Amino acid sequence: MEEAKGVVKHVLLAKFKEGISENQIEELTKGYAKLVDLIEPMKSFHWGKDVSIENLHQGFTHIFESTFESMEGVTEYVAHPAHVDFANLFLSHVEKVIVFDYKPTMVRV
Amino acid sequence: MEEAKGVVKHVLLAKFKEGISENQIEELTKGYAKLVDLIEPMKSFHWGKDVSIENLHQGFTHIFESTFESMEGVTEYVAHPAHVDFANLFLSHVEKVIVFDYKPTMVRV
Repeated sequence: MEEAKGVVKHVLLAKFKEGISENQIEELTKGYAKLVDLIEPMKSFHWGKDVSIENLHQGFTHIFESTFESMEGVTEYVAHPAHVDFANLFLSHVEKVIVFDYKPTMVRV
Repeated sequence: MEEAKGVVKHVLLAKFKEGISENQIEELTKGYAKLVDLIEPMKSFHWGKDVSIENLHQGFTHIFESTFESMEGVTEYVAHPAHVDFANLFLSHVEKVIVFDYKPTMVRV
C-alpha cells in the first residue's frame, strides 16, 4: 500500500441549518468553489449530495472535497483572508460540520 | 459545474473503539481493501488518517473511500455476502461511523 506523493485531501461534511433555501446552498457552494481561484495552494474542488442507502449518513447532506499538495498548503489556505471570510459565512449556516484532512494511501486506483 | 459521469464515491469515516490496537486497525484496513478483489462493482479504494489542523474532525480518525460506476453498483456491493461479513466485523470495532455516497460535481479537476 503506497502513499500518494504530494496530495492532501481536505474533506468537509455539512448539515445545513433548517430553513436554509436551495438557492442559499447553491450560493455557498459557488463561494466555496471560487476559493480555487483565490487561494493558490487549493488545487481542485468537487462536491456532492448524499445519495447513500445504508442510513449511516448521520444527518449530513453535503460533502465538499478539495486537494492540496501538502499540509503547508492547507495551513496557508486555512489562514488566507478569503478562506477566513468564507468560513465565517459558511459556518453560520451549518448545524454541524466535520473537516477531515488526509494523505490518501492508494490500494487500487 | 458538470457532474462526473458514472462515478459514485462511497465515503466512510470511522472512530474506532478505545482499546483497539494499531494492528487490528491495519487488519481491518486490509480486509476493506480486499473487497475490491471480491466485489466486481467496487472499482477503487483508498484510505487515510486525519491530519487536520482545524479541530473540526469530531473525533473521527480514519477515512475510507471507494468508487463505483453507479448507485446500482453500490446496492450490489452493500448486499454482497463478502461486504455483509466484513461490515459486521468492521462495525463491531467502531464507536461511531458515517457512510456518505455522492456523485461528484467537478468544479476544478
